[in-house]
Amino acid sequence: MCQLLGMNCNVPTDICFSFEGFSARGGQTDDHQDGWGIAFFEGKGCRLFIDANPSVASPAADLVRHYPIHSTHVIAHIRKATQGEILLENCHPFRRELWGRYWVFAHNGNLPDFEPIGYQFYQPVGDTDSEKAFCTILDRWRQEFPQRKPPLEQLYRILKATTETLAQQGVFNYLLSDGESFFAHCSTNLHYIIRQAPFAAAHLIDRDLTVDFRELTRPQDRVAVVATAPLTDNEIWTQLQPGELLAFQDGLPQYGLRQPEAKYFSFQ
Amino acid sequence: MCQLLGMNCNVPTDICFSFEGFSARGGQTDDHQDGWGIAFFEGKGCRLFIDANPSVASPAADLVRHYPIHSTHVIAHIRKATQGEILLENCHPFRRELWGRYWVFAHNGNLPDFEPIGYQFYQPVGDTDSEKAFCTILDRWRQEFPQRKPPLEQLYRILKATTETLAQQGVFNYLLSDGESFFAHCSTNLHYIIRQAPFAAAHLIDRDLTVDFRELTRPQDRVAVVATAPLTDNEIWTQLQPGELLAFQDGLPQYGLRQPEAKYFSFQ
Repeated sequence: MCQLLGMNCNVPTDICFSFEGFSARGGQTDDHQDGWGIAFFEGKGCRLFIDANPSVASPAADLVRHYPIHSTHVIAHIRKATQGEILLENCHPFRRELWGRYWVFAHNGNLPDFEPIGYQFYQPVGDTDSEKAFCTILDRWRQEFPQRKPPLEQLYRILKATTETLAQQGVFNYLLSDGESFFAHCSTNLHYIIRQAPFAAAHLIDRDLTVDFRELTRPQDRVAVVATAPLTDNEIWTQLQPGELLAFQDGLPQYGLRQPEAKYFSFQ
Repeated sequence: MCQLLGMNCNVPTDICFSFEGFSARGGQTDDHQDGWGIAFFEGKGCRLFIDANPSVASPAADLVRHYPIHSTHVIAHIRKATQGEILLENCHPFRRELWGRYWVFAHNGNLPDFEPIGYQFYQPVGDTDSEKAFCTILDRWRQEFPQRKPPLEQLYRILKATTETLAQQGVFNYLLSDGESFFAHCSTNLHYIIRQAPFAAAHLIDRDLTVDFRELTRPQDRVAVVATAPLTDNEIWTQLQPGELLAFQDGLPQYGLRQPEAKYFSFQ
């Protein structure tokens, strides 16, 4: 399987600290060495770094670790191949354009028997189940809303339905964003933490590194970090429930369907 | 205006030498400092680096200059903004998926009054004339060949017609590739050189740097480099004619319509 890392903030923030711990799992503290990738949104623009080499041995990962790219929406992935060869075209995150926005998707899990009947607008380039699922999500959205991006509630409703269908095929944890919306779906394993005032120090699990966020933040800053497994050992991470699909905005879960209560909530 | 750099080879080759000279034009030997970008194909996979900072001051450009990425199809661009703000989403090359392949496009020129009536499948994310033209090219191809990529001759015929229409709107030099096909169109200014056995030494115009290709190549290697302006001062570059659209393959112009002779040629 793979591991996911995502970040959603109310002000552009760098992900250097979290990525430092996360990328160690790509061949050092864990065996996800079949490629990695990270996407940063800057407004509507999107930077995408991918590599079929392990993240611990990748010059581009070095760049991401040491060059602070400030972004409000980030999605990263380290790969342990289940389906698809170790090739660049099979590295997550995948990216497509819909409604004049770039959509970025990364998946942790396996949909072993999933084969879409056909594709309408989007075709996979590689041969992973993950990219097939991504194309299916976008195709479904586009069929429903051919002209423009709908309000979050409608977007969520269709995504939830498509996700439930796909999740019946296997394990389907994912992160999905266009730099404005940010979705996190838990099928088996996904955690998040909200960092906001009063800030404290955080210590990585995968490297002996501590950052004191009090020195780096302003009182109004808020950051949500989502990861397959918690990245720090002195903070309390919240585990998403199986079947839970959360929409984050400005560093908070803003909209979602909580299981098992099965009630929509909204912070709006 | 902007500058273009492209490479097409018969074996995966790094572009470090050419990019060294080219990227100097992004703020040092020339004033193209409103962003830059480069796309490398590795099979069907595609790495894309873009930055709204000048290439001479960009950590990602440093990485490209010093980390040899081997590729058979490369497209690079340095930007001097004519239309569209200095933003990440306006940096070339642009990328979209068509027929299960990534297509990458970079433009030198300006289409001042170009406004498509509508988009069918592809919408621009930024606000440049270049991305609008790219979406128009892909839309037209897709309308003509909705299912799969056609043979080169058919692909070329439609591209040629779309290009002629777009070129009536202004200056339209471009590079376009999916990692299999590689097109170069000259509206006003585009040059190429074929490097093949017997190899020699080449000296950059923009930096005092010489590379002796005899030490780096095998006899069967062949590389075509395409650039807005020649990059070396001791080699003979061929200037494309206005209206000329060349399809390169394995480091050679393989198919095209030569002006003013207006005769198709093919090396096949």
